[in-house]
Amino acid sequence: MKRIAVAGASGYAGGEALRLLLNHPGYNRDFTIGALTGGSNAGARFGDLVPALPALASKRLEETTPEILGEHDAVILALPHGVSAALAKDLPEHVSIIDCGADFRLKNASAWERYYGTEHAGTWVYGIPELPGNREAIARARTVAAPGCYPTGATLAAAPGIVGRVMAPQVSVVSVTGVSGAGKKPAVNLLGAETMANLRAYSVGSHRHTPEIKQNLEQLVEDTDGVHVTFTPILAPLTRGILSTVTAPARGSASDVRHAYESFCADEPFLHLLPEGQQPETRHVMGSNMVHLQVEVTDGMIVATSAIDNLTKGTAGAAVQCLNLMQGWPETAGLPQTGL
Amino acid sequence: MKRIAVAGASGYAGGEALRLLLNHPGYNRDFTIGALTGGSNAGARFGDLVPALPALASKRLEETTPEILGEHDAVILALPHGVSAALAKDLPEHVSIIDCGADFRLKNASAWERYYGTEHAGTWVYGIPELPGNREAIARARTVAAPGCYPTGATLAAAPGIVGRVMAPQVSVVSVTGVSGAGKKPAVNLLGAETMANLRAYSVGSHRHTPEIKQNLEQLVEDTDGVHVTFTPILAPLTRGILSTVTAPARGSASDVRHAYESFCADEPFLHLLPEGQQPETRHVMGSNMVHLQVEVTDGMIVATSAIDNLTKGTAGAAVQCLNLMQGWPETAGLPQTGL
Amino acid sequence: MKRIAVAGASGYAGGEALRLLLNHPGYNRDFTIGALTGGSNAGARFGDLVPALPALASKRLEETTPEILGEHDAVILALPHGVSAALAKDLPEHVSIIDCGADFRLKNASAWERYYGTEHAGTWVYGIPELPGNREAIARARTVAAPGCYPTGATLAAAPGIVGRVMAPQVSVVSVTGVSGAGKKPAVNLLGAETMANLRAYSVGSHRHTPEIKQNLEQLVEDTDGVHVTFTPILAPLTRGILSTVTAPARGSASDVRHAYESFCADEPFLHLLPEGQQPETRHVMGSNMVHLQVEVTDGMIVATSAIDNLTKGTAGAAVQCLNLMQGWPETAGLPQTGL
Amino acid sequence: MKRIAVAGASGYAGGEALRLLLNHPGYNRDFTIGALTGGSNAGARFGDLVPALPALASKRLEETTPEILGEHDAVILALPHGVSAALAKDLPEHVSIIDCGADFRLKNASAWERYYGTEHAGTWVYGIPELPGNREAIARARTVAAPGCYPTGATLAAAPGIVGRVMAPQVSVVSVTGVSGAGKKPAVNLLGAETMANLRAYSVGSHRHTPEIKQNLEQLVEDTDGVHVTFTPILAPLTRGILSTVTAPARGSASDVRHAYESFCADEPFLHLLPEGQQPETRHVMGSNMVHLQVEVTDGMIVATSAIDNLTKGTAGAAVQCLNLMQGWPETAGLPQTGL
Repeated sequence: MKRIAVAGASGYAGGEALRLLLNHPGYNRDFTIGALTGGSNAGARFGDLVPALPALASKRLEETTPEILGEHDAVILALPHGVSAALAKDLPEHVSIIDCGADFRLKNASAWERYYGTEHAGTWVYGIPELPGNREAIARARTVAAPGCYPTGATLAAAPGIVGRVMAPQVSVVSVTGVSGAGKKPAVNLLGAETMANLRAYSVGSHRHTPEIKQNLEQLVEDTDGVHVTFTPILAPLTRGILSTVTAPARGSASDVRHAYESFCADEPFLHLLPEGQQPETRHVMGSNMVHLQVEVTDGMIVATSAIDNLTKGTAGAAVQCLNLMQGWPETAGLPQTGL
Repeated sequence: MKRIAVAGASGYAGGEALRLLLNHPGYNRDFTIGALTGGSNAGARFGDLVPALPALASKRLEETTPEILGEHDAVILALPHGVSAALAKDLPEHVSIIDCGADFRLKNASAWERYYGTEHAGTWVYGIPELPGNREAIARARTVAAPGCYPTGATLAAAPGIVGRVMAPQVSVVSVTGVSGAGKKPAVNLLGAETMANLRAYSVGSHRHTPEIKQNLEQLVEDTDGVHVTFTPILAPLTRGILSTVTAPARGSASDVRHAYESFCADEPFLHLLPEGQQPETRHVMGSNMVHLQVEVTDGMIVATSAIDNLTKGTAGAAVQCLNLMQGWPETAGLPQTGL
Repeated sequence: MKRIAVAGASGYAGGEALRLLLNHPGYNRDFTIGALTGGSNAGARFGDLVPALPALASKRLEETTPEILGEHDAVILALPHGVSAALAKDLPEHVSIIDCGADFRLKNASAWERYYGTEHAGTWVYGIPELPGNREAIARARTVAAPGCYPTGATLAAAPGIVGRVMAPQVSVVSVTGVSGAGKKPAVNLLGAETMANLRAYSVGSHRHTPEIKQNLEQLVEDTDGVHVTFTPILAPLTRGILSTVTAPARGSASDVRHAYESFCADEPFLHLLPEGQQPETRHVMGSNMVHLQVEVTDGMIVATSAIDNLTKGTAGAAVQCLNLMQGWPETAGLPQTGL
Repeated sequence: MKRIAVAGASGYAGGEALRLLLNHPGYNRDFTIGALTGGSNAGARFGDLVPALPALASKRLEETTPEILGEHDAVILALPHGVSAALAKDLPEHVSIIDCGADFRLKNASAWERYYGTEHAGTWVYGIPELPGNREAIARARTVAAPGCYPTGATLAAAPGIVGRVMAPQVSVVSVTGVSGAGKKPAVNLLGAETMANLRAYSVGSHRHTPEIKQNLEQLVEDTDGVHVTFTPILAPLTRGILSTVTAPARGSASDVRHAYESFCADEPFLHLLPEGQQPETRHVMGSNMVHLQVEVTDGMIVATSAIDNLTKGTAGAAVQCLNLMQGWPETAGLPQTGL
């Protein structure tokens, strides 16, 4: 029986990974849950921090150290950016690692340094299995970088069009998100009284997920010079969910576009192209690993929309999906395809 | 393989029952999902009404008739009050029935007539397995009345104290609820613009769940004359969840009270008494079948609190819990014990 | 003393107009509130429908007829699209009219017919005083068409750039809105349980406000052929507020762009260009007639953002602003410049 | 022209006081706004902290010192508990003070010490003008303690019954509140992701407002021994508003009770007893200084309900109401009687 650890277990991504693992059909058969680790919370009773998972309530958070994590077969890292890189290099070779942080997502060191301001740590296999070639690469990998939440929603809205050569890769992305994406850090601008009944754009033109979206689209085209991304994130008053809109020039008829989306989604268990006329809604994917998609063509422009749960398909669900692939378990195991 | 139908499948309770059944370990092994029926929606594509369950998207809603439902081994009725009674009497004997409506909950015909204004249809076994004697009765029953959402939260907050003889059965119940409890009917006072950023009490002193709460508490005492219930429901801006507070005179010390709650909850898989000092929160039970509980004693008064998801433990989860008992399946099968 | 009537008084726009009029310094000095009229609600006690305005609670809604409205000096029409046109032609010449509906906003009859499906009723002076020439035209007009909520937010985000010739008029508009914009009609998809904790795009590529935005931008350029608008509205879980993002190619440096926005906003009492680095938030304009604005330039693209309260500057506040101009009262009278 | 300072201007109560003062008819006629002071924020541009009040945006926060505040005719203190007491004793005699904090509310030093854990600073005139005798005392006072938000809602729901001798003063209070009541401090449990889509009780049996409610009810009866208060506060997902329910034994018929409430509210500009059958809703008082009230009698029990905006009538509105009385201005000046 494999042992799986979750580092950063008391954060939103860590808690969501544990929720999925507890309900995974392989739990207590193929794997068990080992250490839950924390930073400043080490030593605390897990149930005091995450009351939603009574089965783990009496566990104590351990320190996030290579020694403790090294005693597991696989670890899911749900740590602040920058922490994973330092930790990962000290983990023994027998440990599979899935990092929910950004440290190993970008290939371009200068883009990393420009957006994150620190030295580039390297590049791991990128954890969106639905992109061409990724599924196989993930299955063979020891270390995988789970994707960012915004890049997941934006990339999977655009990819069917770009892969199908019906959408020009000059995209304007506006993504509206729930507040859990910002994590569990105490900041005035994330208070309920500041975020309820409110909408605000932020990091306009400078959000760290911009180069990640761009890199994903570049992977889909031959001429990477033609790729252009403008990304505007908006914070909205809900806890979970991202609705992404991708606006880009059409390179084909409405039926060409529709066909491209149908082809791309056809065999993907977590991509659900809605019938024409029905738009994705974040509540329909809440708690699930699904991406609901729609695409419209109007006046020569494509507007593609996607809905995901930022903590599930956007982070922890993607991590478990990658874990399944890496362990040879069914890709969909433990990953709800039903929204709450 | 058993066939299970859900009548009223496009409503919130029906959809939640289907979500639970799709993720049930017995699905496609012990049972399959048969007819999904509707009223005015009969004939519609299910996915157009409930996009959150893609696996059932292409099914068509059928008519809610005894003939169609009669071809199943078990049916879950999620219908408006009054409709179940008419339907149930025409269903053949081989069909197990769990009614999420109120028709068969009350024993007292005059209480029924006073609060519901129609003729009393009868009384079925009452679907809160955690009340003394109920679990066994449900397991033997062909027809079960799933409890109301408010009565579930209020009863399970009070029952440990009353059964343990540490709480006087003169209770003031104030329950704050999310808006899905009112169902999917188009009414101005349920619009988002009327319910977001708002709190309102309603049906003060006259809510139909009052006699059901009272009946539940009467079941727990010898002297039913002493039972008194004041019930105030409050509508709050969230979709799912009920937080109930029960205030009543204490008949013992704080440690007696604590002990009574610990004893009552000890072996119950869906009752989670929180550690002292931690209050229940509805988000921690969201999408789960759990009841999180706490109890405080102050100045001679007990304040017991409970959190449930009104659509899960409050309705459809209770129905599946009863279904499990009636079919001889594990009581917890398919019922999440983890909140979202 | 002038008499002002509000037709459609029990809807959200009508109620908001009355809230502003009750707090207007001219109330009971320069004007009094006459008839409140309704459709199916005629005869009802106003306080039963709009409890937030106790001063008017005991008034009765009257019928929406030319006879009743004709006894006033000015009327604000807050009626469903299509109703205003029929009514307006029967109102006597001495009555000033401000229509919050769409009937008289579009100049292009074929655009009207394409998007609204009925015969074009005509074109009134357009009620965004901040657009070049409009303020004077409104002051001279007897009939004014108050703007749509989305067009207000989108147009005022783009106008400073287009007027200043620093933004190309090929704009991608994504506007996130609260639910009150859809009005007080009982529809399942507007229920609290469908709109809370949810995000959804709708009417993608086909929203009726698209030609209105386009018309506004065309008014600002010489070559109207170059104007292109893609508009995507998104419904978010709040009652009031629209956050608009306008993405368009830059035609100048970041400082040129900043300068254009500063110039445009300089003397406008309701336009507040935020300091660099601060993004608009809808809560800061809630209940006010303000437009908070910001503009960023990134990679050759402008992202301009605006926040308004859809019921105030987006509808009823604009109507009162026009009323002030038409009556010769101070333009800002009774219009809060402070958000809640 | 009087000069008024607001200490703690960047908090929610301070900002709300300023919103009311800016829209007060006496602003720039009877008074001007002087210093805005802060703690750790001193030196900051006010608009960076409170963007909703553009008229004050370019002001700088000053230090909260007796010297600076001493140069004003009146100061509103919106400071953390404990800070007011130290500051107030150093303010010169010519300065009127209204404290929005708790320091001077309680008469009973031991109750203060039990609930607040510090030395009792003294007792000021209590700022609920609607309680018998208070209005006159406030008008004569130099220093006034504005009431707590929960005590305002609970006291004004119970007072008509107790003053009218139709309600026994053994009350169970359950108050549901928005999140702004907890202030603008960065704490994990106040994050949007922890408070949206959630309900939780807190401080059950130990909330600091309990002795304040009790003191208010004791002021209304002869036999203070008979007063008993159980208070349960519940946090709900909205920014502003408190809905209080007070359950207590009736001492009279339903019509006696109704009559008592009508008498109490008859001449009070901020108390609005709703028609029978209509329950208060917090959105109808949002941004206003109103208390909407209802009372029901059922099975020998009274359930009285009230809705207030916790930041307006619950804090800053009460402060301005007291300021008006102390300055001899109309009591209702600058205080909206219309909800948003």
